[in-house]
Amino acid sequence: MRRHLLSAADLSRDDAELVLATAQELRSLADRPIKKLPALRGRTVVNLFFEDSTRTRISFEAAAKRLSADVINFAAKGSSVSKGESLKDTALTLEAMGADAVVCRHWASGAPHRLATAGWSRSCVVNAGDGTHEHPTQALLDAFTLQRHLGTSSGGLDGRRVAIVGDVLHSRVARSNALLLRTLGAEVTLVAPPTLLPYGVESWGVETSYDLDAVLPKTDAVMMLRVQRERMNASYFPTVREYSRRYGLDGRRMAKLAEHAIVMHPGPMVRGMEITADVADSDRSVIVEQVTNGVAVRMAVLYLLLGGSEPAIAGVPEAGGAR
Amino acid sequence: MRRHLLSAADLSRDDAELVLATAQELRSLADRPIKKLPALRGRTVVNLFFEDSTRTRISFEAAAKRLSADVINFAAKGSSVSKGESLKDTALTLEAMGADAVVCRHWASGAPHRLATAGWSRSCVVNAGDGTHEHPTQALLDAFTLQRHLGTSSGGLDGRRVAIVGDVLHSRVARSNALLLRTLGAEVTLVAPPTLLPYGVESWGVETSYDLDAVLPKTDAVMMLRVQRERMNASYFPTVREYSRRYGLDGRRMAKLAEHAIVMHPGPMVRGMEITADVADSDRSVIVEQVTNGVAVRMAVLYLLLGGSEPAIAGVPEAGGAR
Amino acid sequence: MRRHLLSAADLSRDDAELVLATAQELRSLADRPIKKLPALRGRTVVNLFFEDSTRTRISFEAAAKRLSADVINFAAKGSSVSKGESLKDTALTLEAMGADAVVCRHWASGAPHRLATAGWSRSCVVNAGDGTHEHPTQALLDAFTLQRHLGTSSGGLDGRRVAIVGDVLHSRVARSNALLLRTLGAEVTLVAPPTLLPYGVESWGVETSYDLDAVLPKTDAVMMLRVQRERMNASYFPTVREYSRRYGLDGRRMAKLAEHAIVMHPGPMVRGMEITADVADSDRSVIVEQVTNGVAVRMAVLYLLLGGSEPAIAGVPEAGGAR
Repeated sequence: MRRHLLSAADLSRDDAELVLATAQELRSLADRPIKKLPALRGRTVVNLFFEDSTRTRISFEAAAKRLSADVINFAAKGSSVSKGESLKDTALTLEAMGADAVVCRHWASGAPHRLATAGWSRSCVVNAGDGTHEHPTQALLDAFTLQRHLGTSSGGLDGRRVAIVGDVLHSRVARSNALLLRTLGAEVTLVAPPTLLPYGVESWGVETSYDLDAVLPKTDAVMMLRVQRERMNASYFPTVREYSRRYGLDGRRMAKLAEHAIVMHPGPMVRGMEITADVADSDRSVIVEQVTNGVAVRMAVLYLLLGGSEPAIAGVPEAGGAR
Repeated sequence: MRRHLLSAADLSRDDAELVLATAQELRSLADRPIKKLPALRGRTVVNLFFEDSTRTRISFEAAAKRLSADVINFAAKGSSVSKGESLKDTALTLEAMGADAVVCRHWASGAPHRLATAGWSRSCVVNAGDGTHEHPTQALLDAFTLQRHLGTSSGGLDGRRVAIVGDVLHSRVARSNALLLRTLGAEVTLVAPPTLLPYGVESWGVETSYDLDAVLPKTDAVMMLRVQRERMNASYFPTVREYSRRYGLDGRRMAKLAEHAIVMHPGPMVRGMEITADVADSDRSVIVEQVTNGVAVRMAVLYLLLGGSEPAIAGVPEAGGAR
Repeated sequence: MRRHLLSAADLSRDDAELVLATAQELRSLADRPIKKLPALRGRTVVNLFFEDSTRTRISFEAAAKRLSADVINFAAKGSSVSKGESLKDTALTLEAMGADAVVCRHWASGAPHRLATAGWSRSCVVNAGDGTHEHPTQALLDAFTLQRHLGTSSGGLDGRRVAIVGDVLHSRVARSNALLLRTLGAEVTLVAPPTLLPYGVESWGVETSYDLDAVLPKTDAVMMLRVQRERMNASYFPTVREYSRRYGLDGRRMAKLAEHAIVMHPGPMVRGMEITADVADSDRSVIVEQVTNGVAVRMAVLYLLLGGSEPAIAGVPEAGGAR
């Protein structure tokens, strides 16, 4: 695995499977009263967030603390960034203070990449969501969740069919998922109104559809995207009512899914908009489990970037074995 | 003790005395250079604050860290809550991330209760103040302080007389204290102008009075409430001058107290409004001690909810004995 | 060493050299994968910041955590301070909660001093920058950096010539540096336009000059001050262009420095204003190293104030020896 995790596109199938296998070992911790390992004791993880995302920040913070790392939160609003400091100088400063990893969330696409290339030697950079670009740990936790429910005997997702539904255009989650799921052998269909599919999406190696009802019966998992209300008045966006009617998931529509198919959502949900409450709370929904898996996957990523050599789990006491 | 601490009304006398006894053991730590115990190592406490309250947040944070828990702060402003996530989904998310306890402060009365009933299995919820409703750990720390100064040989507060003075109507501190002090056997008198006593207060099992001067000589402890300046222009509120004159505690008035009586305040004080500086800093004032006791009481609450079986102290090394 | 660190003026030469020697031992940790010592385990450090300064806060937080202290961050905006609590009550409260050290940043000159004198017994106060007054740990880290590059065989800075350039009038960094560098035997020249030199600066025991070009060839280190843009429209301030032309450091001007001379900046830089990018990134620049040294110096300060007896290093395992 490389020094940074910037894009799902950077992950080879071997890389991705190593993260997922490591996460699976670490996941077993979640069921114990003491969820802590000494693996990253003495290491410092900085959460550098230029955009509010409490949910993602807390997930990384919990992950780092369970590995006994020290965590420093840096909400970039009101920081020296606003006094004119460049991203380059922020990177140099955090490295100089001894940050072993910088988890970066930014409103601008590409910012974590600039951060990674601005530093000189030591810190690892993890992209925790940049603009409309990528959110690779979300894709990894989604893949992890899919594998637990739909995994093939080979460990991959070969031939599994996943529908990603909603505002694909603005979704870093959709992009990272499409890339990673393809790497792992799944077949991905993006379902969205024409105005919410990005230009050139054909090159992602995925199918597209405007018709959710036609896709549902053929899919093994349906992944609903969050609708960003602040965009709803834009001219390329359907009205709320139209959107919910055509691309929302309600009980009637869920009934079209195959028996074994699961419902996913990266959260936070807008219940009643892209998903109804009964669907979100149904047996098919793995939405809450995704959150738990997120902590395990982020532990795996931090562990592999900061501490781990190839057989990652060797250094992890007591985590071997059971799933 | 139950799984949550939502209201002082939920505490039986046995429950309350268990917390106070546990706090007394833990309190002895405050006088040591190393104030830390391993009791909650590997557990995660989330401070979920929908309302600013640095003082309460820091007290819980210090309490959790002294028990070696990991603490994650979650100021709900600007979080996914504002993106439309419901309290239910916040509860499910924090549980799924492995939060063992959620300490919740909310501007809406009843929010911690909804949080506790929305989760499915694992997290404990501690009410750190909700609207004008309750603030049970404040009541416990006040009871703890009273017991140290006025405790009966039986360990309770039977027959001790406590006056709670000021804006009772809007005070969660007053309500929680009235409930808990009654449970512990004390006699409570609420002293306030008629417009600042809640409707139906008779049912609390307390006395009421409009006349502070008449109450003071008969009381063992006087507990001043914070005046919330933002309310001072409301029609039900006296003017500042009138309020201070009739319900403020100054040196002249303090002289009416019995020799052994103590002066309390939950903080933060508005010196010169509800209490004068000389009273706040006098020998009778236990206001600073209340703060120290607050950390011990919150340690006890977290310990009992998360780790402790009935003889709580058994698991606490080195804390036995001295007071 | 005293109980508090409020001003560089309070440090005798012996005090300062003890801090620097301790920092040098601790600095060696920065090159190890595990940067943590158990020295302050169980101690609590509160970062009490009344003014945004992420860079300084993170540096202290990293320092405290590397010594295994618990850190509680307290951004005073929106806190009970705004509900009318005095600095005195904040001090009493933090002490009562068991804070062993309070690291205070404040927009008002003298606030940390008031905090130190308001407490009654236990907490140490460290001034992390107060108004236009002082920033003693910045001066210590600058002295530490100078000593590593220009130190005399005696360990001090005797006879070394340092130029401090820019808005001296508003700079707590300039004042603390001038005081400490004099104590350590260096010769200091303040270079600024007449309107940006404070009244009575002669009494600091330093030289002054309006002419940067004349000073550069004779100096061993040039310390550029940050220009606070928000002041640039004030009548005592030159225009941006004029300021950069006369007091900015660019490549042409850097060439006038002696072979061994170094370039310093406390950060955050405004590249293109007081310093050009090529100078900031040049071989002579020790700006990034200053950041690393800052963590080591703050570790030393916290260690000496909270834990250490005179031969400070004796209690520090594994840190002896190598530089």
